[in-house]
Amino acid sequence: MKTHHYLAITGGVGGAKLALGLSKLLGGDELAMIVNTGDDFRHLGLHISPDIDSLVYALSGESNPDTGWGRRDESWQFMDALAALGGETWFSLGDRDLAMHIERTRRLEAGESITRVTAGLASALGIEHRILPMSNDPVHTKVLTASGVMDFQHYFVRERCEPVVSGFKFDGAERANISPEIDQCLNDPALAGIILCPSNPFVSIDPILAVHGMRQRLVQCAVPVVAVSPLVGGAAIKGPTVKIMRELSLPNTASSVAGHYRDFLDGFVLDVQDTALNEEIEALGMKVTVTQTVMETLDDRMKLAQVCLDFLGQLL
Amino acid sequence: MKTHHYLAITGGVGGAKLALGLSKLLGGDELAMIVNTGDDFRHLGLHISPDIDSLVYALSGESNPDTGWGRRDESWQFMDALAALGGETWFSLGDRDLAMHIERTRRLEAGESITRVTAGLASALGIEHRILPMSNDPVHTKVLTASGVMDFQHYFVRERCEPVVSGFKFDGAERANISPEIDQCLNDPALAGIILCPSNPFVSIDPILAVHGMRQRLVQCAVPVVAVSPLVGGAAIKGPTVKIMRELSLPNTASSVAGHYRDFLDGFVLDVQDTALNEEIEALGMKVTVTQTVMETLDDRMKLAQVCLDFLGQLL
Repeated sequence: MKTHHYLAITGGVGGAKLALGLSKLLGGDELAMIVNTGDDFRHLGLHISPDIDSLVYALSGESNPDTGWGRRDESWQFMDALAALGGETWFSLGDRDLAMHIERTRRLEAGESITRVTAGLASALGIEHRILPMSNDPVHTKVLTASGVMDFQHYFVRERCEPVVSGFKFDGAERANISPEIDQCLNDPALAGIILCPSNPFVSIDPILAVHGMRQRLVQCAVPVVAVSPLVGGAAIKGPTVKIMRELSLPNTASSVAGHYRDFLDGFVLDVQDTALNEEIEALGMKVTVTQTVMETLDDRMKLAQVCLDFLGQLL
Repeated sequence: MKTHHYLAITGGVGGAKLALGLSKLLGGDELAMIVNTGDDFRHLGLHISPDIDSLVYALSGESNPDTGWGRRDESWQFMDALAALGGETWFSLGDRDLAMHIERTRRLEAGESITRVTAGLASALGIEHRILPMSNDPVHTKVLTASGVMDFQHYFVRERCEPVVSGFKFDGAERANISPEIDQCLNDPALAGIILCPSNPFVSIDPILAVHGMRQRLVQCAVPVVAVSPLVGGAAIKGPTVKIMRELSLPNTASSVAGHYRDFLDGFVLDVQDTALNEEIEALGMKVTVTQTVMETLDDRMKLAQVCLDFLGQLL
């Protein structure tokens, strides 16, 4: 039997849930994940990659179930000691989490690409699936707000998403190249479908699409591309998606998200709570499948992953 | 009454014990400490200053009583996580200790001098006395061994002082300037004496003396300079002093150490166990005082500090 390969496109914690579900259904050679690095930033001298780490921690069973971010069995001795020294503490770095940042920074400074560094760290944590940063070149997500242009993490963490958003830009994206590894996945004759995970369209997926040539590759892609709605009943499970949509004067509906991707999307996975939007989204020129998209348990993640794979099979 | 100022010259853990004793007898404006930075090194992207930290931890009550190095109430979550990622683990970095290295590195990269950074960190930990790195310029202690030239920490920690030593060099020392703060202390009219703490002469004190002009300043200095013997009965309390002396074909005696500093030393503090060496050391052209130099308790540290101050008073 011919092997089918799949590509997942994902940002932070929400997207990582579906990626985990997919990883439980597909072998290490059947699934690769493209992950956002637009919110990577330099902090305390360290190269921090929040979305890569969310994905690595989800796939390796290292996610912190209590906080919803960071590593499990975490401690905060470093952070407490840093606070006592008068250091910057707005971005929380757990003792175990720090190992990722320090080792990543060391390897990057030794000249390895972020793709290679990520492969090394993921492999050390027992992950078999490929995690592919969207580009080896730096892209910096900037948030245009009423209080001026902000680095993404300053907006997201330090300012707790409070400033009113008027737009985003992805510095470096036009000069950033698709990595050879992603290029290879997109050209792979065994590629059977692409899944946009339920991540924030503006700050998690758009930076990936902004990488030079990426969106065009999805538009021209011969295999079906589906997205899972990040909104359920007009609300996001987590994060500022709805707040941003309101500030951008966009309706906070799944249809609005589907419209955001309409140039390359073949199918949309809609939550059962939003069944009424079915026709509106089909009118955008894509197929719709309706299912339970809220993922609380591992079983939820795997079921939704299976729905996505079945949907892609129907669209092929 | 005229205030007397004192300068202590110190390296690692042993020297820091006497420095702590002195700090309990003298006010923040009466004592400054010149500390070795020849064993500073870059590790995992961090600027690590082992001797500064030994002194800062001793003076702030942060020393780890169990290990004899590092911070108290320490945990090793970072280190364990780093090991799991396949990172370099030969140099142990505790979670609390890491805060010092990360904050120091950040401030240095922001352009602050090591003197200023150290003042900031020490002050944050409640230290009132001045801790003065020997120079703001980098000096790198290299160990000449039978297995080649080694960075000091590689010799000291990674190779556990096992290679046979044939000598030392202090890269950068000739180009390193005495810091303005140290220069000011040495020129201070209130300066009443200088104390060499019982640190390893070759790897803790010699790098300080090698800073351009430093040894000459001690030779020409108008106030008395005394040293406390780092050897007791031909043995060091801790560290490779005796092993190094044997490998350099030097007698492992307090007299040999006194001879090492004879060009600038006015007095030598000898342990009671070495009373027999009294005349031999006086024959080098310096005064000797004999006392209990082994410091187990805080009281021991303070008593020895008082002996040093009294001795300096007699020599003035």
